[in-house]
Amino acid sequence: MSVKQLQLRAPQQGLFEFTAQVQVLVQESHISEGLCTLFVQHTSASLLIQENADPDVRTDLNNWFKRLVPEGDSLYTHTMEGADDMPAHIKSALTATSLSIPILNNRLTLGTWQGIYLWEHRRRGGMRTVVVHLGQ
Amino acid sequence: MSVKQLQLRAPQQGLFEFTAQVQVLVQESHISEGLCTLFVQHTSASLLIQENADPDVRTDLNNWFKRLVPEGDSLYTHTMEGADDMPAHIKSALTATSLSIPILNNRLTLGTWQGIYLWEHRRRGGMRTVVVHLGQ
Amino acid sequence: MSVKQLQLRAPQQGLFEFTAQVQVLVQESHISEGLCTLFVQHTSASLLIQENADPDVRTDLNNWFKRLVPEGDSLYTHTMEGADDMPAHIKSALTATSLSIPILNNRLTLGTWQGIYLWEHRRRGGMRTVVVHLGQ
Repeated sequence: MSVKQLQLRAPQQGLFEFTAQVQVLVQESHISEGLCTLFVQHTSASLLIQENADPDVRTDLNNWFKRLVPEGDSLYTHTMEGADDMPAHIKSALTATSLSIPILNNRLTLGTWQGIYLWEHRRRGGMRTVVVHLGQ
Repeated sequence: MSVKQLQLRAPQQGLFEFTAQVQVLVQESHISEGLCTLFVQHTSASLLIQENADPDVRTDLNNWFKRLVPEGDSLYTHTMEGADDMPAHIKSALTATSLSIPILNNRLTLGTWQGIYLWEHRRRGGMRTVVVHLGQ
Repeated sequence: MSVKQLQLRAPQQGLFEFTAQVQVLVQESHISEGLCTLFVQHTSASLLIQENADPDVRTDLNNWFKRLVPEGDSLYTHTMEGADDMPAHIKSALTATSLSIPILNNRLTLGTWQGIYLWEHRRRGGMRTVVVHLGQ
C-alpha cells in the first residue's frame, strides 16, 4: 500500500490526459490485484475517465459544459475571484473529485477506449495536485 | 481481496439494476467488513445508485437527462459514431464511472431504498463490463 | 480497517459541512497511510467536496442546481412524494453518492480549501446516514 502525489500541468481550460503517469505508479507499486484511487486536491478542477480516441470528444465535452455553466450568470454572488471561478466550482460539483480503478495483473483495468483526464475549469490553471492511493 | 468482472446486458437506453449480482460477489468473498468498488469499462454508460421502489423515478431520470443532453445539438463536432454517441459521452461525464460501497456483516451497506444500476446511454448498448473490487 | 456510521442533521436544502467528524474518525483509526471512503445511504442527498472559504460558493451552488432542476417540471411523472422529491433524485444523480480521500500521516489529504459536505436536496431532510470505511 502506498500514497503518492502527481503534479500535473494544466495551463488552461480543458482535459489533460495523465493515464501514463498513473500506470507508472501502479507498475512501481508491484501490486498484482488491488485498487487505485485518485483524488484531486482542488475545487475548480476535476477528474474524468473518457474516450481517448477522437479528440473532438474532449472539445465537445468542454464546450458543452461551458455553455451549461456560463460565465457572467446573474445568479452568481461569488464573483470576487474572477468570472471563471464560480462556473469552475459548479463544473467540479457536476463531475468527479475522486475515482477508483481496480488493478489486475499489475495494470489498471481501464476499458479499451478509456483514458484518465484532469479537467481544468479555470482559464489559468497552473499546477494541480492529484493524490494517488494504491492498495490491495 | 479479489477483482471480479460482471457482464451486464443493456440493450437500450435506461437503467438496468444489478444489485443482486454484486451482493452475490460480496457473499462469495466472505469479507465481513470491507469495501466494494465498482468500475464501468465504458465511456458511454455509467453507474448509478438510485431509488429501487417506484420505477417512474428511473423513467424521469432518463428522460430528464435526454432533454438536458439532446441528440443533434449543433455544438457537437464528434458526430461520426452516431447521433447518440456524443450525448452518451456527456451523460457519462455527468454521472459516475466508479462507485464504492462499504461492506458490513458480509453485506453491502446500501440504504433501504437504494439499488445499483448500470445506466446505458447508447440507443443500442449490448453487453457492458463492470469490474468489481472487493477488499478489506 | 473499520466501518463506521455518521448521523448528520440536515434540516433543509443546502450544504452541511462534516469535515471535522470525518477527521475524528480518521484519527481514532490510527491509520497512518490509507484510504477513507464515504457513502451516503440516501437517494435524495449527496456528498460534495467543495470550497470551505467563502459561504457564497455554497449558496450559488445550491441556487444553480435548483434552477437547473426546478420543482413542478411537467416532465416528472413521479410526483406522489412531493414536488421536491424528483428534483432531489436528479440532483443526487448529478453529484456523488460515494467519495474516497487518501490518508497520509493519519490525516485526510484534503487540499487547503476543501471541505466535505452533505448536500441535502429535500426541503425537509432530517437525519441522514453516511457510512465511513477506513482502510489501508
